[in-house]
Amino acid sequence: MSEGTAPPAGDATSVADEQARERLLYLRGSIDNLDAALVHLLAERFKCTQQVGELKARHNLPPADPAREATQIARLRRLAEDAKLDPAFAEKFLNFIIGEVVRHHKAIADQETGREGTPGRRDVTIG
Amino acid sequence: MSEGTAPPAGDATSVADEQARERLLYLRGSIDNLDAALVHLLAERFKCTQQVGELKARHNLPPADPAREATQIARLRRLAEDAKLDPAFAEKFLNFIIGEVVRHHKAIADQETGREGTPGRRDVTIG
Repeated sequence: MSEGTAPPAGDATSVADEQARERLLYLRGSIDNLDAALVHLLAERFKCTQQVGELKARHNLPPADPAREATQIARLRRLAEDAKLDPAFAEKFLNFIIGEVVRHHKAIADQETGREGTPGRRDVTIG
Repeated sequence: MSEGTAPPAGDATSVADEQARERLLYLRGSIDNLDAALVHLLAERFKCTQQVGELKARHNLPPADPAREATQIARLRRLAEDAKLDPAFAEKFLNFIIGEVVRHHKAIADQETGREGTPGRRDVTIG
């Protein structure tokens, strides 16, 4: 990437390159393991929010809960800081997940009411 | 949410509502636990991709690896299906993470080369 030229060929360089490639494979193995864990945790999280959506639709509970959402964001930012993860990214991540939950809850609410309503962002809960 | 009216007051309704609220708190506890786990795994994943970025910049390894990315997406979609998570969401999730990794790797590459280059989406690796 630096200057667009390959490093000069040589034993020392080859050994260093080989070690770098091995290290890369090692790190990619960890990334793959972490991704598998992330996907399974996300699957479990959506099972929970699915139940929350059904519960709220059935019991006429208020769909939106801004206080809950604010608490979740503040907590995740705090956890991220402790884990040396960019807190802004943690917040973006939660908002990304919320977007998907919103889509799910809207589908549940539409099924429960039999309406083709289009609740906006604040009309649905994030669990 | 159904008709905009509250359910009729009564003991049976109150008990059902109280049970629903308790169930909601229970599910939210699980969601909070899963979110904490997700944040910590994400922190660990970024530690790995940070190392990948440094390694590639140092060893002049090709920054982009479309084959690796295609393998990652196919694998995550497969894992998502097994876990009953929408595979399309799993792919969206990986792309969301990649966006952040790209931002990090760009910063690393700029530091290594001392340039103010602006590598595009395909000029950086996702680890």
